Amino acid sequence: MFFEGSEKKVEVVMTSSSDSLRSLDKVFWEKLVSLSNAEILSSVHNEQCDAYLLSESSLFVWHDRFLMMTCGNSTLVNSLLSFIEKVGVVNIQSIKYQRNKEYLGYLQTSSFTEDIEQLKQIVDGKAYRIGHLDMHHHHVFYYGNGLVEDSISSELLMYHISGNAAAYLRSDSQKKADIRTLLQLDTLFPDFAIDDHLFEPLGYSINGLKKDKYFTIHITPQESSSYVSLETNLDINAYQSGLFIRLLDILKPGSWDTISMNTQVEKQALVDSYCIGSCELFLNQGKEIAVKQYQQPWHKHLFAEQI
Amino acid sequence: MFFEGSEKKVEVVMTSSSDSLRSLDKVFWEKLVSLSNAEILSSVHNEQCDAYLLSESSLFVWHDRFLMMTCGNSTLVNSLLSFIEKVGVVNIQSIKYQRNKEYLGYLQTSSFTEDIEQLKQIVDGKAYRIGHLDMHHHHVFYYGNGLVEDSISSELLMYHISGNAAAYLRSDSQKKADIRTLLQLDTLFPDFAIDDHLFEPLGYSINGLKKDKYFTIHITPQESSSYVSLETNLDINAYQSGLFIRLLDILKPGSWDTISMNTQVEKQALVDSYCIGSCELFLNQGKEIAVKQYQQPWHKHLFAEQI
Repeated sequence: MFFEGSEKKVEVVMTSSSDSLRSLDKVFWEKLVSLSNAEILSSVHNEQCDAYLLSESSLFVWHDRFLMMTCGNSTLVNSLLSFIEKVGVVNIQSIKYQRNKEYLGYLQTSSFTEDIEQLKQIVDGKAYRIGHLDMHHHHVFYYGNGLVEDSISSELLMYHISGNAAAYLRSDSQKKADIRTLLQLDTLFPDFAIDDHLFEPLGYSINGLKKDKYFTIHITPQESSSYVSLETNLDINAYQSGLFIRLLDILKPGSWDTISMNTQVEKQALVDSYCIGSCELFLNQGKEIAVKQYQQPWHKHLFAEQI
Repeated sequence: MFFEGSEKKVEVVMTSSSDSLRSLDKVFWEKLVSLSNAEILSSVHNEQCDAYLLSESSLFVWHDRFLMMTCGNSTLVNSLLSFIEKVGVVNIQSIKYQRNKEYLGYLQTSSFTEDIEQLKQIVDGKAYRIGHLDMHHHHVFYYGNGLVEDSISSELLMYHISGNAAAYLRSDSQKKADIRTLLQLDTLFPDFAIDDHLFEPLGYSINGLKKDKYFTIHITPQESSSYVSLETNLDINAYQSGLFIRLLDILKPGSWDTISMNTQVEKQALVDSYCIGSCELFLNQGKEIAVKQYQQPWHKHLFAEQI
């Protein structure tokens, strides 16, 4: 029943003189996605963005950038290497390749270290590990060529979900509409065009799109290794204070991390939780990545699972 | 500079009708140790026990049992499989095979799951994981055949050591005598016959023996992945209250775990630390393993390490 929910992620921003990425046809993106051992399941579009739901997470394509995230034992670095080769590094303004610590890293095709060994052969970026090697930690590889327009992103990564919502997400006869209601998505993300998918035997993904803004949620509900991620480029503090808190309240994770790029998610912690990790990293051109890790007091009650 | 300090460990207890394990010659143990990709460096003996210091940790041999622990990318399960084959499972009363979560599990030759797949083909034991998959966790495989005499053990596993002692242990011109003084071993373990070794470029191991009692300390001081383990079969609460606290005070780890078998180490926590994990597991015949995990409040300050 094990599935690695933890995502690898890449954002590539093109130079202003490059052709629009949206002029590339669907076959181009299908091939790129296939190099990660994933496929396009469905999509939703508006005047600014194409959002693809993948068999392993999501792909968003704007005129000047794309964001791809893949979970499971996907090989996202291969998609990235192929993209760089196809468009030429000279047309790329910045690359941000990120990888969270996986639940079971030894099942992955490559380590982050191996990924960046390949990347560094063609782009002169810097790589960091944020966090202790024996705890949750986050890897980032960053390449920037000149001034890149600031982008904002906020991530909420939840581990070991519990309670009624978790029980429903592990049950047999789920419905997409019921999951949307459970997550209060109508209230949290009104007026977003959405595209969602229920996986067999378990798992749920949703992309939401509104003008140039997106949100994406991926749920791996399996016991012992449950993981739910939310990512958005909404400025969540300006947009809807307490967005993270609402989701934490619904999904009741034992622990969670927040990762924010050029924004603050300070006010998004539950009052009675421990902060067990905190770091700010400044990349070049003032770009800031902040990582915070929280644990519920009750999460210390470990269990012995027979294996 | 990375070295995996985290140990795999096995204790095998023989039936009362078996020959004394101490009648087996050194060549037998050398071969057994070599199957773990380790070698015997030195030894110390008394009337009850032979204690071998290994290139990767330690081996203790009593008349009716042996305890072997190996760190690095050692293959302890191969030694265990060979031992069972040589002496015959019918002559074995109990087997306890344990493995802590490694810093970098993907560098290991095998996973715990793979190890127990092999073991379960020849002994009918049960395997457990204690602790969350994404945090420190401890694996134990237990096989028991009839009533086994209770043994006591206590382990203190320290991660991310800091302060003056850590700085000395990472310095160039260390001396074994100075490390013994630094760790206050004369005070903590008076009258023990000792055998210690300083590794190149870094690392220190010591075995101590007094009658049927042992202690063993292994130090992997490398930054980012430092690890120090103490294990003993002394009843530490009866023997010397505050033994763990003394070592915590000297080595100042950011986090640590305690693992105790048939004894309590409750009073061995620092006052201002968080308990972030706690579990008791009852194996058959009332044997109890208790695992506790602690973190210092200051350990939450993460750093971004360029890699």
